[in-house]
Amino acid sequence: MFLSDNTAPACPEIFAFLQQHIQGTTDLPYGDDFYTQQLNEFLSVIFDTDVWVMPVLTGTAANCLALGQLCNNYQSIICHESSHLAISESTAPVFFTGGARLQYCGGEIDKITPQQLAQQLEATHWNDIHGSPPATLAITQATELGRTYSPEDMQIFGDLCKQYGLNYFVDGARFANAVAARQCHPAELSWRAGVTAMTLGASKNGAFNVEALVIFDPQYAKGIMARAKRSGHLASKMRFLSAQLHTYFSNDLWLNNARHANQMAALCDRLLKQHSIETRFSAHTNQLFIRLTESQYHSSRDAGYEMYHWPLEDQGILKDYYRLVTHWSTSAEQIAGFADAIGIKVTKPI
Amino acid sequence: MFLSDNTAPACPEIFAFLQQHIQGTTDLPYGDDFYTQQLNEFLSVIFDTDVWVMPVLTGTAANCLALGQLCNNYQSIICHESSHLAISESTAPVFFTGGARLQYCGGEIDKITPQQLAQQLEATHWNDIHGSPPATLAITQATELGRTYSPEDMQIFGDLCKQYGLNYFVDGARFANAVAARQCHPAELSWRAGVTAMTLGASKNGAFNVEALVIFDPQYAKGIMARAKRSGHLASKMRFLSAQLHTYFSNDLWLNNARHANQMAALCDRLLKQHSIETRFSAHTNQLFIRLTESQYHSSRDAGYEMYHWPLEDQGILKDYYRLVTHWSTSAEQIAGFADAIGIKVTKPI
Amino acid sequence: MFLSDNTAPACPEIFAFLQQHIQGTTDLPYGDDFYTQQLNEFLSVIFDTDVWVMPVLTGTAANCLALGQLCNNYQSIICHESSHLAISESTAPVFFTGGARLQYCGGEIDKITPQQLAQQLEATHWNDIHGSPPATLAITQATELGRTYSPEDMQIFGDLCKQYGLNYFVDGARFANAVAARQCHPAELSWRAGVTAMTLGASKNGAFNVEALVIFDPQYAKGIMARAKRSGHLASKMRFLSAQLHTYFSNDLWLNNARHANQMAALCDRLLKQHSIETRFSAHTNQLFIRLTESQYHSSRDAGYEMYHWPLEDQGILKDYYRLVTHWSTSAEQIAGFADAIGIKVTKPI
Amino acid sequence: MFLSDNTAPACPEIFAFLQQHIQGTTDLPYGDDFYTQQLNEFLSVIFDTDVWVMPVLTGTAANCLALGQLCNNYQSIICHESSHLAISESTAPVFFTGGARLQYCGGEIDKITPQQLAQQLEATHWNDIHGSPPATLAITQATELGRTYSPEDMQIFGDLCKQYGLNYFVDGARFANAVAARQCHPAELSWRAGVTAMTLGASKNGAFNVEALVIFDPQYAKGIMARAKRSGHLASKMRFLSAQLHTYFSNDLWLNNARHANQMAALCDRLLKQHSIETRFSAHTNQLFIRLTESQYHSSRDAGYEMYHWPLEDQGILKDYYRLVTHWSTSAEQIAGFADAIGIKVTKPI
Repeated sequence: MFLSDNTAPACPEIFAFLQQHIQGTTDLPYGDDFYTQQLNEFLSVIFDTDVWVMPVLTGTAANCLALGQLCNNYQSIICHESSHLAISESTAPVFFTGGARLQYCGGEIDKITPQQLAQQLEATHWNDIHGSPPATLAITQATELGRTYSPEDMQIFGDLCKQYGLNYFVDGARFANAVAARQCHPAELSWRAGVTAMTLGASKNGAFNVEALVIFDPQYAKGIMARAKRSGHLASKMRFLSAQLHTYFSNDLWLNNARHANQMAALCDRLLKQHSIETRFSAHTNQLFIRLTESQYHSSRDAGYEMYHWPLEDQGILKDYYRLVTHWSTSAEQIAGFADAIGIKVTKPI
Repeated sequence: MFLSDNTAPACPEIFAFLQQHIQGTTDLPYGDDFYTQQLNEFLSVIFDTDVWVMPVLTGTAANCLALGQLCNNYQSIICHESSHLAISESTAPVFFTGGARLQYCGGEIDKITPQQLAQQLEATHWNDIHGSPPATLAITQATELGRTYSPEDMQIFGDLCKQYGLNYFVDGARFANAVAARQCHPAELSWRAGVTAMTLGASKNGAFNVEALVIFDPQYAKGIMARAKRSGHLASKMRFLSAQLHTYFSNDLWLNNARHANQMAALCDRLLKQHSIETRFSAHTNQLFIRLTESQYHSSRDAGYEMYHWPLEDQGILKDYYRLVTHWSTSAEQIAGFADAIGIKVTKPI
Repeated sequence: MFLSDNTAPACPEIFAFLQQHIQGTTDLPYGDDFYTQQLNEFLSVIFDTDVWVMPVLTGTAANCLALGQLCNNYQSIICHESSHLAISESTAPVFFTGGARLQYCGGEIDKITPQQLAQQLEATHWNDIHGSPPATLAITQATELGRTYSPEDMQIFGDLCKQYGLNYFVDGARFANAVAARQCHPAELSWRAGVTAMTLGASKNGAFNVEALVIFDPQYAKGIMARAKRSGHLASKMRFLSAQLHTYFSNDLWLNNARHANQMAALCDRLLKQHSIETRFSAHTNQLFIRLTESQYHSSRDAGYEMYHWPLEDQGILKDYYRLVTHWSTSAEQIAGFADAIGIKVTKPI
Repeated sequence: MFLSDNTAPACPEIFAFLQQHIQGTTDLPYGDDFYTQQLNEFLSVIFDTDVWVMPVLTGTAANCLALGQLCNNYQSIICHESSHLAISESTAPVFFTGGARLQYCGGEIDKITPQQLAQQLEATHWNDIHGSPPATLAITQATELGRTYSPEDMQIFGDLCKQYGLNYFVDGARFANAVAARQCHPAELSWRAGVTAMTLGASKNGAFNVEALVIFDPQYAKGIMARAKRSGHLASKMRFLSAQLHTYFSNDLWLNNARHANQMAALCDRLLKQHSIETRFSAHTNQLFIRLTESQYHSSRDAGYEMYHWPLEDQGILKDYYRLVTHWSTSAEQIAGFADAIGIKVTKPI
């Protein structure tokens, strides 16, 4: 199944850790347990700076709890109109901020460009009491189309945020894939570029059900526990969530899983291109947008390789694509099976 | 540790089921998976009527998602001033209803009495635009002090709700303990008494981290998924939560676990009384409120039997009690150990 | 001053009525007074159908109280991105709906076109739990640029709303100007075209400070008083607001005032065109968007004819315009004075 | 009519000022007009300290806009359970704070006592993430039963607020009556006692429809305009509201009006007592709670002296009282007429 990386199983390392350390043990509730207490320290090492971390059930909760800290109820959040915030989180950003609005900024099909952002900020009426001036920039890394922002662009965003007094947020549901793709230190794609807070997905990349909310600027951690409590996100047995993160960030599991997913997408991309099947972008991370005939799509679906139909604009025209998403447990055999299903004969091991 | 049943481990049956059916498998997200799809059917058998069920991470989320369906933003929820809603869910009831208020009703230290409720409803100015008239009665079964409402009292509440057009909600974080204690069918403590919707805890009674939101009157299920989505409670890998509930309600696991917890509390109660140590109520479910000397408390704590200090009013005077909570994995050895720590010599096997 | 019609004085008829009937008299609070009780009947005659009416302090309150009735907290309101809702009401639409989002639809610089709306509705994923599907269409009549929707277009909108199950709302802050311009019955621009509810401005057109919230479909009046109460809009001495509306809708005062304002704008438009000064649209209602040199602008400002700088896009390029707004007390002498200030010699009485 | 002071007419001074300075004139919108710009200065003289002032349509809006500045969405507001906030503002305090709860504190039938407040604050679990700790004390001056807090008690409240880090709010819908009754400087009942912000009613005491929101601690004025905007309380023609306040605070009009109302209540109180008719308290301000027979009540109502039935607890028993409210235009003739209607013969001019 290539529908989404949220169809993925949980990986054995995480399961084994839960079995050994959580299932049969007793510990304090609401984050006073051993594993939750370690999380800040643990992630501070990963990011090479002091961070504040909280485990959360869903990406929507993680994103919106963070945004509630970063944006007031009469302000706006700048994001791309194709971002998860804009199209896949219903009215959650509004709910958690108590009323903030989304303001779109673009430049590319899935990305905000520094030029567009600079221009939009320049044109803002910051003191218009009838408007809702931006308070936070929110980018998605990797984007909804699987591409990534470069450390350089992220730094320019950070400079603009600083200049205009904006907070800077990263929706990192697939941050692991972005770090793996950019082969850089996570700090370069976050706090070193000026990021205030971010979320970091695990559910799509090997965990059962947990995301990390990471705050770099400690002033924005104030009150976050109360915000989590009143939205029903302060888990009594938080240790079960924290232990997943614990394993996820141990022994580079998060990066290894993401790297594998990216490689499977790259493998597939290469294979398709060798056989003249168009993919919209080169595979950056773990998503491919593929031009298939309807008959190829049906064949692949019948063979168990389900994908979403995902029309994308190309020079003003909507074209049909299918989105293929790989994940930590996608195998080369599955890629080969998919290729076979759409009529590509793979003659040697891939 | 006797601090709370949310310190309990997860039980082996649930763990084994996750291992076998969830860890290594792929399935659809957002509740379209196999185990979530079965939940309604599964719980309908338990309750002997058609129900709508949703798995939720926390008790606060489950309670408040339900109340958001049952109470408008300018109305009130009648509850006991010692209820979890009133003292332990911060402003979550307000957040999820968009503004509803809590209105207290009592009669006993932890319970609403039918007389008090009848009197309060009788005195209500239902059409006062300046007030916030009640729309929902919320009771806790078992109560915060471990006692239970009888099916008869629950029926009277149901009749009053019907008479005044109120919805009727049960916070069942420890519903399993109540059913086990009352030795009755779950239907008698819910829909047969007129209950509109309820929550049913699992985290405290053997699960990792899941609660069930159960709706009996189907009109109140309309829009609940959107409400869950916008509060970050629509889990992408919901199957992991649903599978816990699946096992929990299989083979009477939920009742067996609760019965054991209740028995351990009863065992302790008997032992204490035999040695003239006062407990506030007879053990109904899995909580005891014990009069200990400070020295006894310290001895028990040092021996690893931590409890919360829990002052309770007794005829107008606040008296010191300690709350002891048992759970599914509490053992007779632990009870004996505790007895020993506070100076009770247990001469024969208990 | 041509800044806005909200700089206008209150007209003598309204003042005299307050003097005679309100200032010195005693009456019941919260809308139980004589003049508020008459409002429904009064406006039902104006609209030639049964309506429910409430007087409100501001246009933002009137619009957003209505939208709170017409749109749920997880849904969207379709509006034009230049509408008052979108640019001049901060996050009020969100606040009053409890979280709804705005979804933009366009076609013309200040108008939604039937084609665009049809296309957008056709493309909507109505059952996407992750999205926020539209529940209400909101148009502005007259628009922010002073143009009006024809009864025919309004009817097409109504048909589309019916087809897709949307509510249909009209922001009528300058509805009087639109009715006067279209020379049609107010019913044709409202309920006969399928409108569910609307607001109707008076503050800009002769009143001190009052707007009318008008509901055509009675099911949406349910709960509106509670909504007004909890947002602080249920005035204790409501009679003072209602009496303003009473006079406003008597003896065609609202239409006469609007007609005069429109005529003054038309007069100015003609004068400017005779002297080859470009205005963006022909004067439809009481707004003109004028191309002036910077020197002309400064001269007119120095002469007391203040206007806002109002850049408008013209074939992809932002061009400088100045917005001139007339109102019920604008005089031909003022128009002549303005003309004189920008270098137009008016040789005969205008 | 003695139902409420919100049935009162508007007083001639205010009307004349509107006629002369507002009706026929043009000025800037949204508070940039001449009279609004003067308000801060004007009220700073009245209070003998720098204040920030905003005119608002209703008492509920004024109270709740202020509380929104003083209390976060996960905190509580301490108030008396008979206060206007608690019983007459529906869920507005929740709406404007985004979710705060009311926590009751008492001591007397209509008043919080310093002892009770000290005790309740002492017992508060300030760091309980599951609770909603108090952030603001809200008292009503004069109270709902027409009594007043002494400057001494207000100072003790202020000291407690300072000690515990609470904000301190006064609902002054009838503050003028309190100042008149206490014959002290308004500063003594406000900022000198430590009050952070207050509201000050005018609608009940001679204005058409306006209340003043007064902020003493300037940090809490930050963002209030945006809050007003998004709740629909930023009036475009604000000058009309401000001009009412302007006149109200000129020439001691506010105190003279209040003093007269208080005197009429005192006159009535004396008359009733002379004829052995019980009133619950001595008349402090402009409210009397009178023990009448049902036949007396009916006679007075038939004679046009309508009152509300207002049962009050007296040593644990609910007793029937009728509430009589006087206002700035109540005359001695009306008091005599009322006395006559209930069977008291007034033989000499009163």
